[in-house]
Amino acid sequence: MADEFDVIVIGAGPAGENAADRAVRGGLSAAVVEAELAGGECSYWACVPSKALLRPVELAAEVRRAPGLTAGPVDAAAVLARRDEAVSHFDDSGQVEWIGSVPAEFVRGRGRLDGPKRVLVDLPGGGTRTLTARHAVVLATGSRAVLPPVPGLAEAVPWTSREVTAAKSVPGRLAVLGGGVVACEMAQAMHGLGARETTVLVRGDRLLGRMEPFASALVAESFAAAGIEVRTGVEAVRVERPEPGGPVTVHLSSGPPVEADELLVATGRRAATDGLGLETVGLPGDRPVAVDDSMRATGVGGGWLYAVGDVNGRDLLTHMGKYQARVCGDVIAARAGGGPDDLPALRATAGGYGAPQVVFTDPQVCSVGRTEERARAEGFPVRAVEYDLGSVTGAYLLGDGYRGRAKAVVDDERRVLLGVTFAGPGAAELLHAATIAVTAEVPLERLWHAVPSFPTVSEVWLRLLEAYGL
Amino acid sequence: MADEFDVIVIGAGPAGENAADRAVRGGLSAAVVEAELAGGECSYWACVPSKALLRPVELAAEVRRAPGLTAGPVDAAAVLARRDEAVSHFDDSGQVEWIGSVPAEFVRGRGRLDGPKRVLVDLPGGGTRTLTARHAVVLATGSRAVLPPVPGLAEAVPWTSREVTAAKSVPGRLAVLGGGVVACEMAQAMHGLGARETTVLVRGDRLLGRMEPFASALVAESFAAAGIEVRTGVEAVRVERPEPGGPVTVHLSSGPPVEADELLVATGRRAATDGLGLETVGLPGDRPVAVDDSMRATGVGGGWLYAVGDVNGRDLLTHMGKYQARVCGDVIAARAGGGPDDLPALRATAGGYGAPQVVFTDPQVCSVGRTEERARAEGFPVRAVEYDLGSVTGAYLLGDGYRGRAKAVVDDERRVLLGVTFAGPGAAELLHAATIAVTAEVPLERLWHAVPSFPTVSEVWLRLLEAYGL
Repeated sequence: MADEFDVIVIGAGPAGENAADRAVRGGLSAAVVEAELAGGECSYWACVPSKALLRPVELAAEVRRAPGLTAGPVDAAAVLARRDEAVSHFDDSGQVEWIGSVPAEFVRGRGRLDGPKRVLVDLPGGGTRTLTARHAVVLATGSRAVLPPVPGLAEAVPWTSREVTAAKSVPGRLAVLGGGVVACEMAQAMHGLGARETTVLVRGDRLLGRMEPFASALVAESFAAAGIEVRTGVEAVRVERPEPGGPVTVHLSSGPPVEADELLVATGRRAATDGLGLETVGLPGDRPVAVDDSMRATGVGGGWLYAVGDVNGRDLLTHMGKYQARVCGDVIAARAGGGPDDLPALRATAGGYGAPQVVFTDPQVCSVGRTEERARAEGFPVRAVEYDLGSVTGAYLLGDGYRGRAKAVVDDERRVLLGVTFAGPGAAELLHAATIAVTAEVPLERLWHAVPSFPTVSEVWLRLLEAYGL
Repeated sequence: MADEFDVIVIGAGPAGENAADRAVRGGLSAAVVEAELAGGECSYWACVPSKALLRPVELAAEVRRAPGLTAGPVDAAAVLARRDEAVSHFDDSGQVEWIGSVPAEFVRGRGRLDGPKRVLVDLPGGGTRTLTARHAVVLATGSRAVLPPVPGLAEAVPWTSREVTAAKSVPGRLAVLGGGVVACEMAQAMHGLGARETTVLVRGDRLLGRMEPFASALVAESFAAAGIEVRTGVEAVRVERPEPGGPVTVHLSSGPPVEADELLVATGRRAATDGLGLETVGLPGDRPVAVDDSMRATGVGGGWLYAVGDVNGRDLLTHMGKYQARVCGDVIAARAGGGPDDLPALRATAGGYGAPQVVFTDPQVCSVGRTEERARAEGFPVRAVEYDLGSVTGAYLLGDGYRGRAKAVVDDERRVLLGVTFAGPGAAELLHAATIAVTAEVPLERLWHAVPSFPTVSEVWLRLLEAYGL
């Protein structure tokens, strides 16, 4: 029967694609259903275009710090054109072809559950196709930006992460609601690409509230130097935009209102479960799909339903969704084949250590594991050490006025790293060493023999261990 | 007695300074003897100035690859001025002050052994000072560039690493003898800073002969694109320089001679043991000082003599010298105090895995552990996997035409990494993750849960593990 597959994946973002790929590698057949573009949010409206926009801004900052080198102004049109190339001009044929090569069947349309192991697909041309899964259905529908319930906000049709990363031009004045990763990255990108007034409106007391405070401070300092205004402790209470696409005014809980040519809302996301038919299998439709470490949905009889990526609400990060998807595809294949399904590789345990994350601002901020605050709150015997990255010779050699900082949060009894944060220009690639050390729980006494090369910025590893007392 | 110390260190480079520092932290008194500048080769005539010269050249290349950004020509005078700042204008007062703050006594002069635990220092103003060590003498005199015995070469007074890194101007035509790290880095620096003809003369069949061949190929390709000529399989047979400082002609074993305005010789180094008085303690004076893993010289009665850094011939790399020095200072303190002297932290075992090293060319090349060839030669059950760095999304987002490659050499039985090599723009900071993985022997099954962040270049870790079959 053509419409029966071993595995049906709803959502062809990075997580869905990987789940299908691993299941097929395990000997199963798979269909992948997608209502929008194969490749998903990340490829078209998130990580990829945002980094394409940020790269020249970051690089221009590096050039400004490097004696003997000067850069011309950033050519925003050329950057937007490269962004268009990076998102394949919103054409997903390459991705569709890749899915076919897995091989898996690509089904374009909106998929929804219709009881156990049954997926209905509303086809783009009208009509519905019914798919049946022999073994598993994997939900990989991702997440959607949420607009907070501020009077006038929805009517103002503000930008979200989608619109700002797909921008066709740079607004003259940009207001940003939110202080998290998307807010910081896109404020800096748009400002660096030519916005002349950029105002970031933060409800809490700092940018990047989930990162170590020193990282927030370094980003705030960089924003101030670039002329990006940050207002903390403010909430939007009313938004006015008399003309569609015209100037927009954000009235705040305190201080004067902000007028801008465009408003970006980046205050949070929620799991994309609308219309997914979760109630047909006995699950609530208004929250993320809870899963165990094998990515199997809890509370569904028969254990045939899985959820990977943002839709399970665990870690809203592309790489974590892909990681979960690798585990999920492998575990489905193991269970279908009757093999052992409890090997370490068949459990997505990395998130439990604290997912790695990079913020591509200048300075870049990256972290893995727990912040000091979180580690203490969880009752670990914590000792934290910090070191000024600018004092590392390898950083000094990158340019004048390099500013950055590193912090290691140590379990003082087991002498393993609970968390590491780096903030500094170009710090993103420092992170994976920490991800290995934290996730594999490499003892400090072993890390002491991992000698960082001179003169790299990575020499901060030596300084952190020395600061700890090794 | 003022001239008696627990530890006497001969050589105030990074290794000597660290040995003294750790010994003093362990409760001992120390003197540090230096004939030239405190801070050593690395700080004035090697790693530090070379990176100061290379950084703008590397950054200009990154800008050329980044759509929307343009850089003006590199201002060589500004770069040379920054280099002068980076080497503290060859003034070591900051380093001398640091040694004093350890606290350790800084003794300026040429130190040499004069029998067990005795050091004679030939003072700069004439006269000799006799120092006596209660516990240990540490040799940390580094290494010197060697001129091969080519007729006319010494008479031509060519540049070595010292002169090129301290250059006051950029020669119009530069010939480089050698194809290793110094040769490659300085050829690219001088060419990028304005040399109009740069010719690299390599005896072997490729640049960077100790690295994985693909890394050599990528650097050669970059040199060709930049207009740097590389001739392989050639040896200098005669050098002519009729006028001191004038044009120099290098006659080769095959092909036409090369005429240049300056000649850089970078064909190797040897341990700086000349005049060190090794024969007064029964050691040969014409070779590196052999040491065990606690950095204690072998074959010296009483076990009071140690050697760290280049002079012991183990790994001629600043960071490895410093690492050895930390071990050495700690072990001397442990032995002096009668504590256990065989803890893992008291043995410099990292070099045995294969020292990490970065070549700061464009592309940067870095490696740790064993090359595939070496691992096979040593009898390991090897499986090697490679991945094109340019196919990693995070690399694509750095710029157009990113070219790079990564390779992992796996012990197929123990399933740990024996070696890793990265070659690509900005690859230097990728290395420390590999250094941790190789040195701590993190099993591949644990590395699988260390999720690289998207979209970083580090995502190549995922691709390598996938290529291996995880």
